[in-house]
Amino acid sequence: MRIISYLDGGTPSLGVLTSDTTFAAVHELDSKLPRTLDALLAKKKGLAKLADAAKGATGKHKLADAKLAMLLQQPHAFWALALNFKTHIQETGLTTSDVHPQIFLRVPWSFVPPNAPLVAPPPDVARAFDYEGELAVVIGKSGRHIPIERALEHVAGYCACNEGSVREFQRHNRQFGLGKNFEHSGSYGPWLMTADEFGDPATHSLITRLNGVVRQQAPLDDMLFSVAQVINYLSVGYTLQPGDVIAMGTSGALPPAPDDAAGNDLSAQVRKNPIPGTVHMKAGDTVEVEITGLGVLRNPIVADLPNEYRH
Amino acid sequence: MRIISYLDGGTPSLGVLTSDTTFAAVHELDSKLPRTLDALLAKKKGLAKLADAAKGATGKHKLADAKLAMLLQQPHAFWALALNFKTHIQETGLTTSDVHPQIFLRVPWSFVPPNAPLVAPPPDVARAFDYEGELAVVIGKSGRHIPIERALEHVAGYCACNEGSVREFQRHNRQFGLGKNFEHSGSYGPWLMTADEFGDPATHSLITRLNGVVRQQAPLDDMLFSVAQVINYLSVGYTLQPGDVIAMGTSGALPPAPDDAAGNDLSAQVRKNPIPGTVHMKAGDTVEVEITGLGVLRNPIVADLPNEYRH
Repeated sequence: MRIISYLDGGTPSLGVLTSDTTFAAVHELDSKLPRTLDALLAKKKGLAKLADAAKGATGKHKLADAKLAMLLQQPHAFWALALNFKTHIQETGLTTSDVHPQIFLRVPWSFVPPNAPLVAPPPDVARAFDYEGELAVVIGKSGRHIPIERALEHVAGYCACNEGSVREFQRHNRQFGLGKNFEHSGSYGPWLMTADEFGDPATHSLITRLNGVVRQQAPLDDMLFSVAQVINYLSVGYTLQPGDVIAMGTSGALPPAPDDAAGNDLSAQVRKNPIPGTVHMKAGDTVEVEITGLGVLRNPIVADLPNEYRH
Repeated sequence: MRIISYLDGGTPSLGVLTSDTTFAAVHELDSKLPRTLDALLAKKKGLAKLADAAKGATGKHKLADAKLAMLLQQPHAFWALALNFKTHIQETGLTTSDVHPQIFLRVPWSFVPPNAPLVAPPPDVARAFDYEGELAVVIGKSGRHIPIERALEHVAGYCACNEGSVREFQRHNRQFGLGKNFEHSGSYGPWLMTADEFGDPATHSLITRLNGVVRQQAPLDDMLFSVAQVINYLSVGYTLQPGDVIAMGTSGALPPAPDDAAGNDLSAQVRKNPIPGTVHMKAGDTVEVEITGLGVLRNPIVADLPNEYRH
């Protein structure tokens, strides 16, 4: 099952895809079902009830006409992993523990819905505004002290995530802080694919395209810590909640083709050790994060207003 | 004005202190005013309307009888500073930027209300469960790109914070992650003292007591980055929201008196370089964080259930 959040005349609503281009409105299938994914996941057997209601449904709504909303309105926590792909560890030259995952938090405010514009900081504030294509895990069942072998039972489903980052701020000090939390710097979606349909994360791949050029491509079995290991780790100290999200970390840059001017232009990169194939996002660009077998999360990039127009 | 959140027969309610021991219920003063601090701060001139309603009120409720609730139900963001006191930087031996504050996030779930028990992890999970007495700033007015000289206009008020930390997990990797987010490991309160009454943060002091023994004591003008500087910094990338909280960092340990067994017992500390005067929190303890002129935040410590009793 693939579930979208969208605005029906301004009202947050849920839809179930009935094909790659059509969906059925959940409130038309069963008016007693919740209208947000947060509430659906918090409801006992919410996903199963939706699956029942959606059985055999024909979608009369066109996906292309829907204004997608935030997949989740207010996650209790949005966890994210740093340095969880060997290729990304290598390219950054940074070290990370191979015993414990490296984890930080993002605020909901730092994300925009699928198709909505990511906001690039004004150049005088920061120029290294970077995509990070990632698999995101959405928790469906609360739990503490979850053993690895039962961890995936707590997953409602998966989506793609662009964990957009402002590198200059990320490097301001030891903790990432604001660099991972610029408002409207990231996105996740375009829908939740339920765990039963998605299957084993390790069998999927991650692809990031900037303006149509593939910039990241990695099998998800290249992760240092698996989805199950991270759920197990977090649940030692924190009761995972329905609607919590875990972004699993990004992979390294693909080596650029010889005729790829942007990918080979190291002077355009704002970093001490430029990485071939890394290209900062800027206004006018379009970025896509695809999880194979799941779908494509797409966002245009717009410029932030200069300071004097803000308050 | 000092504002408490409390439970009135299970319903979240607000109160205004009318003395150090009594308060008036806000819904009895004006039934149209919101019943949560989040909603009051989000309301235009909410604090001013409450001040009007509370003028000359006599408190018929006893503070000692009130079951205090979370001061804020759901902050959009709970920011916290690392290494913002020179004494704490020195004792840890860590370095930090003197140009940009070091900032991380906590999830609301990691906090309990004033007087409610902090939960010490089971000893087989972690033993270095540490208090961090801090000043917490509560934002009252949203804003982006806030200049330093206008930053304090965005502050609704202040409270004390115990930014309780699980050191073993904090040191698992580069980002603090779970080590700063064990559930029920911290607290803030006991009330919001409005900015007009609190005055200049730099004129106050921070005192932390464990079982009545003073363990931290520092003037707030010893902070590396001031409240105004941190608001200015965050607002470069993030629109501060009413109800956001910023915990301003903790100070170093006080040197223990010669006859202070716990403070001198370096072998009890779970760290590479033990710090005289630092004592981990454990079940049965009581911890207090006082901000002079504001009040005392007090929490008992209880033991977490062993793993086999949890799920």
